[in-house]
Amino acid sequence: MEIPTPDSRLAAAASARQAELTKPPGALGRLEELACWLAARLHSPIPDMPRGEVFVFAADHGVAARGVSAFPQAVTTQMLKNFAAGGAAINVLAALEQVPVHVVDVGVASDEPTPNGVRAERIRAGTRDLCKEAAMTESELSRALEVGERCAREAAGRGARFLIAGDMGIANTTAAACLICALTGATVEEIVGRGTGIDDAGLERKRTTVHEALARLETVLARTSSDDSRARQPGVASSEARQILAHVGGLEIAAMTGLYCEAARRGMILVLDGFISSSAALAAVALQPGTSRWLLASHRSAETGHGVALTALGLSPFLDLGMRLGEGTGAVLTLSLIRAALALHREMATFTQAGVSTRASSA
Amino acid sequence: MEIPTPDSRLAAAASARQAELTKPPGALGRLEELACWLAARLHSPIPDMPRGEVFVFAADHGVAARGVSAFPQAVTTQMLKNFAAGGAAINVLAALEQVPVHVVDVGVASDEPTPNGVRAERIRAGTRDLCKEAAMTESELSRALEVGERCAREAAGRGARFLIAGDMGIANTTAAACLICALTGATVEEIVGRGTGIDDAGLERKRTTVHEALARLETVLARTSSDDSRARQPGVASSEARQILAHVGGLEIAAMTGLYCEAARRGMILVLDGFISSSAALAAVALQPGTSRWLLASHRSAETGHGVALTALGLSPFLDLGMRLGEGTGAVLTLSLIRAALALHREMATFTQAGVSTRASSA
Repeated sequence: MEIPTPDSRLAAAASARQAELTKPPGALGRLEELACWLAARLHSPIPDMPRGEVFVFAADHGVAARGVSAFPQAVTTQMLKNFAAGGAAINVLAALEQVPVHVVDVGVASDEPTPNGVRAERIRAGTRDLCKEAAMTESELSRALEVGERCAREAAGRGARFLIAGDMGIANTTAAACLICALTGATVEEIVGRGTGIDDAGLERKRTTVHEALARLETVLARTSSDDSRARQPGVASSEARQILAHVGGLEIAAMTGLYCEAARRGMILVLDGFISSSAALAAVALQPGTSRWLLASHRSAETGHGVALTALGLSPFLDLGMRLGEGTGAVLTLSLIRAALALHREMATFTQAGVSTRASSA
Repeated sequence: MEIPTPDSRLAAAASARQAELTKPPGALGRLEELACWLAARLHSPIPDMPRGEVFVFAADHGVAARGVSAFPQAVTTQMLKNFAAGGAAINVLAALEQVPVHVVDVGVASDEPTPNGVRAERIRAGTRDLCKEAAMTESELSRALEVGERCAREAAGRGARFLIAGDMGIANTTAAACLICALTGATVEEIVGRGTGIDDAGLERKRTTVHEALARLETVLARTSSDDSRARQPGVASSEARQILAHVGGLEIAAMTGLYCEAARRGMILVLDGFISSSAALAAVALQPGTSRWLLASHRSAETGHGVALTALGLSPFLDLGMRLGEGTGAVLTLSLIRAALALHREMATFTQAGVSTRASSA
């Protein structure tokens, strides 16, 4: 399917308007650039604040058993209930921005059914240990991608013009680090960080785990790929991206990837979140390159490798506040800047309207 | 008068609460630190979003005649009308945050009376040329400081707990650059920037102008100060700060300084804006050192010397979006982060409330 192209004429019209507003040219900095970027994607030279929705995908990771997280696996399920009750950070921030939050159980490791208030899409009770074997089968991957695609489709039907995908999953920075290394070629040392706050010994275990997972992945890819496709650098072939995602990804990351791909096909803006989100975005771009046209970075996370992932995506974040929570929190926090950029673009007086001189002094 | 000290016990109580909220410790980054900083200043371990007001002080500068700005002086008066009509960037942003904006004519160069909707406090029709002589007399300086003090007092009476001072004045980055150099010891090359967007020749003129003004100021200070007070480095004595402000400041900058000093005496939070605001804050801290306890940086402006001024103030900004508009725009834009930090601090569930585990995995 063709990925829609943003309308560069609308971006140019928005840019011309910015030059007419009562301020020195460029004085609103990145808010000006943001208004033009949005105009090209919202079908108007002077767009209103679009409607959007947040999807928080939750799943567990077999690799958690290796002690790569500061928190026990049970926290994923506990947090699911917290999301449903409205007590998590993403609930608070989304309420401020009046954006609905949907929480989706794509695969938490629990014997209990999905809690009330959470969408039940559990594919399996957590992935397998990505260090030893594929985290999920091809068929499980397809189902996880479809969960995300379905969420995007339904939100589009409700009139959403932007989407935010958040994550919850103990040990998911390990899976995301594997993905970012495999998809960008960055080293384990550049990408693996402390996640929720693991100690030095844990960080060492995590690095070793990612090294081993990547070594296993390399063997798998060498076996299944022709020399031709392996040589087609830079970038990863779509079929290879699927294998990478199945072997070292996670169910919630795959659902985010599916949401990004489907939303891009529908020309919806994707406000990325932090480290996990960037791994899903890299996978989405590898599966479907045109997806990148619809990606907007929000913040730079404190997690070590996030900057590398953003650079690989060609994106510059707006906020850099040392956050590292996931859930979509950085993305939702950035909505106030989007709202401000669009309000300035729409509501400021022009030089003509205000009778303000534009000409430079001749002194 | 004694400057109130923020309550460190409230900051500690807020910090303890942050450790109880359902997120890994520190995962909200600077929003956590911000909530604690605010708690110490808002008389509560869990403060509500405080009420605040914006004052935009406008004045003209004799030095504009030297061609140090990309815009003609008439723009100050024209923009005053734009503020009154609600068409400027600060109006749009303050409306989003539902914060009132007061516009104050402290000294625009106009034969016409202060426009309707603008507070008339015109001390003189623009300062004298700071390159040749003192920008204002001691008595004019006192009156400008008092305008700001009065504004702070009145806002306090209306229940404001934070204030934002914005600026409008063609050529005021030249005065602010002189002030920042004189108050921090930074070099002209480190501080002088393009302001509203002056070309290379204008930038050179502006640097020369600041060099000449500082040389003149040095002579004045050497004549009036004893060797003792000149040697009392680092920092500038209060009496010297007054002279610096009168000789190379501006009427709007002095009003901002007065507002900062009076607000700090009343224990009101001061959300700083950009380059001009930082020059007024440096002057306020030199006049009354305890003022610094109440200063919060908002954004880093694109104007060359702003980072140096923030470092001298010991402040780290929250936003860095390439803005360089003044008017209070960067400060008002940061209010959404303050609102978010306080909402998270107040509304997130604790580990106990949500039944979420805090203990690290024993793996």
